Amino acid sequence: MDNYDVVIVGAGPVGLMLATCLARWGYKIKNIDNRPEPTKTGRADGIQPRSMDLLRNMGLKRKLMSYVPAKVYEVAFWDPSKNGIMRTGTWASCPKFIDARYPFTTLIHQGHIEDMFLGDMQKYGVEVQRPWTITGFKNDGKDKTYPVEVNLEHAKTKEKETVRTKYLFGGEGARSFVREQLKIPIHHKDPIANVWGVMDGVVRTNFPDIKMKCTIHSDAGSIMVIPREDNMVRLYIQIASSTDPDFNPRKTATEQEMMDHAKKILNPYWIEWDRVEWFSVYPIGQGISEKYTLDERVFIGGDACHTHSPKAGQGMNTAFLDAANLAWKIHHIESGFTKREVLSTYESERKLVAEELLDFDARYAKLFSTRLPSAGEVGAAATTASDAKPADENEFVKTFKASCEFTSGYGVAYKENMFNWGPQHSAKSPLFLATDRGTKLRTGRILVPATVTRVVDANVVHLEQEIPLNGSYRVYIFAGRLQKTSQTLKDFTKALDKKSSFYSAFLRDDIDSVSYHERHNPDSHFFTLATIFNAKRTEIEIMEHLPKTLARYRDHVYADDVWDVRVPDAKAAAHAKMGLDEENGGVVIVRPDGYVGCVVKLVEGSGTVDALNEYFGSFVTKKLGGEQAVL
Amino acid sequence: MDNYDVVIVGAGPVGLMLATCLARWGYKIKNIDNRPEPTKTGRADGIQPRSMDLLRNMGLKRKLMSYVPAKVYEVAFWDPSKNGIMRTGTWASCPKFIDARYPFTTLIHQGHIEDMFLGDMQKYGVEVQRPWTITGFKNDGKDKTYPVEVNLEHAKTKEKETVRTKYLFGGEGARSFVREQLKIPIHHKDPIANVWGVMDGVVRTNFPDIKMKCTIHSDAGSIMVIPREDNMVRLYIQIASSTDPDFNPRKTATEQEMMDHAKKILNPYWIEWDRVEWFSVYPIGQGISEKYTLDERVFIGGDACHTHSPKAGQGMNTAFLDAANLAWKIHHIESGFTKREVLSTYESERKLVAEELLDFDARYAKLFSTRLPSAGEVGAAATTASDAKPADENEFVKTFKASCEFTSGYGVAYKENMFNWGPQHSAKSPLFLATDRGTKLRTGRILVPATVTRVVDANVVHLEQEIPLNGSYRVYIFAGRLQKTSQTLKDFTKALDKKSSFYSAFLRDDIDSVSYHERHNPDSHFFTLATIFNAKRTEIEIMEHLPKTLARYRDHVYADDVWDVRVPDAKAAAHAKMGLDEENGGVVIVRPDGYVGCVVKLVEGSGTVDALNEYFGSFVTKKLGGEQAVL
Repeated sequence: MDNYDVVIVGAGPVGLMLATCLARWGYKIKNIDNRPEPTKTGRADGIQPRSMDLLRNMGLKRKLMSYVPAKVYEVAFWDPSKNGIMRTGTWASCPKFIDARYPFTTLIHQGHIEDMFLGDMQKYGVEVQRPWTITGFKNDGKDKTYPVEVNLEHAKTKEKETVRTKYLFGGEGARSFVREQLKIPIHHKDPIANVWGVMDGVVRTNFPDIKMKCTIHSDAGSIMVIPREDNMVRLYIQIASSTDPDFNPRKTATEQEMMDHAKKILNPYWIEWDRVEWFSVYPIGQGISEKYTLDERVFIGGDACHTHSPKAGQGMNTAFLDAANLAWKIHHIESGFTKREVLSTYESERKLVAEELLDFDARYAKLFSTRLPSAGEVGAAATTASDAKPADENEFVKTFKASCEFTSGYGVAYKENMFNWGPQHSAKSPLFLATDRGTKLRTGRILVPATVTRVVDANVVHLEQEIPLNGSYRVYIFAGRLQKTSQTLKDFTKALDKKSSFYSAFLRDDIDSVSYHERHNPDSHFFTLATIFNAKRTEIEIMEHLPKTLARYRDHVYADDVWDVRVPDAKAAAHAKMGLDEENGGVVIVRPDGYVGCVVKLVEGSGTVDALNEYFGSFVTKKLGGEQAVL
Repeated sequence: MDNYDVVIVGAGPVGLMLATCLARWGYKIKNIDNRPEPTKTGRADGIQPRSMDLLRNMGLKRKLMSYVPAKVYEVAFWDPSKNGIMRTGTWASCPKFIDARYPFTTLIHQGHIEDMFLGDMQKYGVEVQRPWTITGFKNDGKDKTYPVEVNLEHAKTKEKETVRTKYLFGGEGARSFVREQLKIPIHHKDPIANVWGVMDGVVRTNFPDIKMKCTIHSDAGSIMVIPREDNMVRLYIQIASSTDPDFNPRKTATEQEMMDHAKKILNPYWIEWDRVEWFSVYPIGQGISEKYTLDERVFIGGDACHTHSPKAGQGMNTAFLDAANLAWKIHHIESGFTKREVLSTYESERKLVAEELLDFDARYAKLFSTRLPSAGEVGAAATTASDAKPADENEFVKTFKASCEFTSGYGVAYKENMFNWGPQHSAKSPLFLATDRGTKLRTGRILVPATVTRVVDANVVHLEQEIPLNGSYRVYIFAGRLQKTSQTLKDFTKALDKKSSFYSAFLRDDIDSVSYHERHNPDSHFFTLATIFNAKRTEIEIMEHLPKTLARYRDHVYADDVWDVRVPDAKAAAHAKMGLDEENGGVVIVRPDGYVGCVVKLVEGSGTVDALNEYFGSFVTKKLGGEQAVL
């Protein structure tokens, strides 16, 4: 019987993201899918700005962009008018008040997205096993290392295979076998279920916004338009709703009916199809799984945990982040870095996001169904945050803003827990900073993007992307002014170098044979250090200004000397954007998935590292920071 | 005997660029190379900012970037010091006063560059024939369509092949057989010849600027450091110079001698090689070919026309632009658009650039050999143009600035001729604008980059890249304020629609069957129209505000509504950057290779099109603009 680190059921977005992360970090994966072939076209298609950050962080963005996706920057609203329909307004898909590196939604069919992951997994020796299905599993603990037995079967030949695994992941979509076997119930936030028709095709039309995302209400019905790669356009039409008096969830429509319906809705504009690429009709309701795991060995994620209307464009994005969230936690446990308890945060963090998604989905539906925005309101919402005075914001604008932040992916805020520092955290050092003192960064939120100059080669780079998704915590040492923090950096590094510091307690076993060219993990698999000075690049001499441990990360030393339109008066824009003191800096700990863990004041003496030892000490396997108590 | 449109000898950068352009435009190409295989590694490596624009315009940038090249933003200067060497200053490789979209040099070995072109040519059915060599050719005119006979031979089997062609191109490098057969002499601007050693390898070192471009002078000799992809670094060492008393152009050096020499120069820093990827020693002098063609049927380009020191990093870039310059001129003649005389401008335009390159090479050598810049001077040069007061500029700074512009590729200025309008042009309309009246654009220079919003999908795009290298003239109609130019646009289009206008005289034969989805050439193979309004995107309704002919280019309608740091007070940044009236606009004609041809005032009546008819009438095959004389 073969043993695996993780068996992943389903090779859609959630399964492939999990498999890709874990394969890269060296785990033995079995990823099965009951379909004989990957998705060819159609299905999920919208990649939100935050997901694009993640894909770029994995080095997958270039591949994705090579498919030449459509990009949605604005959404247009069309409403009934005397002559059919008229545009009542547009707004930004990711407005300027959101500080996004990629302020647009990227549209590409799921076939390309799966292809991107499959190509990457192949480099690490992982192929999806098809068409295989799961027929049973049990966490029988008969093997302490591989406690879960999984029964698999070839979908056609009925050939059987039984394997053991450390973890089983169900990413098989809304009708998850794993979830059903666990008898985890689905809860419905909103009792309304809908039947949706969706059609990708190449069209000719004089409808002016065919390359924009549109929500069109007409007397003949409603439609959502989503531009796609290769001159395609996707149309979503609601075919039936459980609010209809004669609702039948099996109600369907043919391609021709969809086209006829669309033609009526778009009147007075004409539309013709050159070809239809993909067509599907499916019923869906708003549902959320009560639990994401029962035993922290068998997990579910993606559509297996949350279903909702396709209008929000959030399914795949939420799935990506489910998988990314779980991947590094499994990695840290299996490599002996953190305690097993950290796994509880997968459900607590991701289920909350799914709940927000369902709330949003309900609000979103209401927004479009019950109250149509006027152009004036939309105009106010689309300007920058600094332009819009709070007094100008009505309920609709507020809802819109909150929704934009959520749909872009930047609204995701993990609550205070062992990873996301807050006043209730067991680490109590007074040096922890919060939004009410010393930083603008919010724990549990994504790191604010910032452009800086890399010292070693003078390249202008995106700081938030400099450390790849390598399973490591990102330790950003904003070092303030060179002339001010010289002693502070020495003290910081001295404390870091102590055997029981969070950093030195987990050095690599093979530290003496690590390649000279290793950029990200020369000393530790769990930390990558980056130092950012408020100085011009030419003023910084790495060997002179950085203690040895920091200087070893020579490719991660930056000059905060690039002007930023968002903080036009700042001398050190990156420091300013983080809300850190431009003179004295501060240390920002970012989780492997890009969310801020904690922010600590950078001070002389061992205080900063003491605080970090407290923070990491709450979840790593070793006792940290004993030494300074002795001193 | 087979007939070809163009036979290209040599599949290095110049030959591949020419073959790629012509293959895309549907020509029958034979491209031979005497090497059994493409370049694997080493050789040319530096892609300048202007070349990157060109490669992106061809859709090749993404492929190039997938090789993860090194990027050089700054150059560091090291000079002898008491303890060995010390850095005396750095400066920007492409300083801010140059308005470049990609302000860096991209470093990648020639193997990857050839691979990029070969992959693209393959899509159009062209494979390089190897290892074949040219043994003779004559423009005997025995066939009027294919006047040139070319004799080819397999380099090993000696199999022979004779073909006829419309054009023969010699891109075989410094020892060009084609050039030699034509008995075209090489002239030397500078009598000094040098032997250079060049070595690509992976190194370990404590030299801090190993990832920067460096020029290092030491008492032990001089070296140039160029960072490369895959942790490599290229070192150039001058091994011998004809100014040496015992100069021997056959003098050589071993890998070990190069390394030992480099170690001495870099002292007090240490350097060790993990491996050497490529190593070569070659003698080279400054030379320029007296002619680029004798009969405008047989041409030479690239290193066959100009040789110089490798320090300038200009050889491949000049080669690319030689080929791009020739490609569209051949295309326009062979498709019946322009008169054969336009071919004379290949030599007149490109030879001037080569002469400037050789002048620059001489100045550059002098700059580093005879006077070392101080850090203060370098600092002044690296700031923006607006910061630096003319009074502050000494001779060195001026030379530096001029050189930076030249080496970035943006200093290339084609002189006034039939394509590049000036006071001597046969088109005499008073509506032509020049830098002393109505525009900042300079004819014969690259179009200034500008960021705008595409109306149809609200995408924020780079205007200068929106029309690909498709062999068409780019007609940018900067339409000023919507409210102001409505009648002007109607008049402009009315004149455009007249049968004898430059535009309507060359409509596609298959205009009635062109795909609805054709974005760039729906009406004409020789023109792509783009309209840019000084308006917010949401104010522009394509069907309402644009006459039909302009509206057909619906994917090329833009809102000039993106703020630009270079013109912070402008309402319409693109208009402002071009120096055009923000209210009334203007028309900019850009040649297929991206250089500004002419700029014309946009006025009511037929004047604007009359002026363009005059301009194009000077070199196209049809008589233009007869009609308005009749009216």
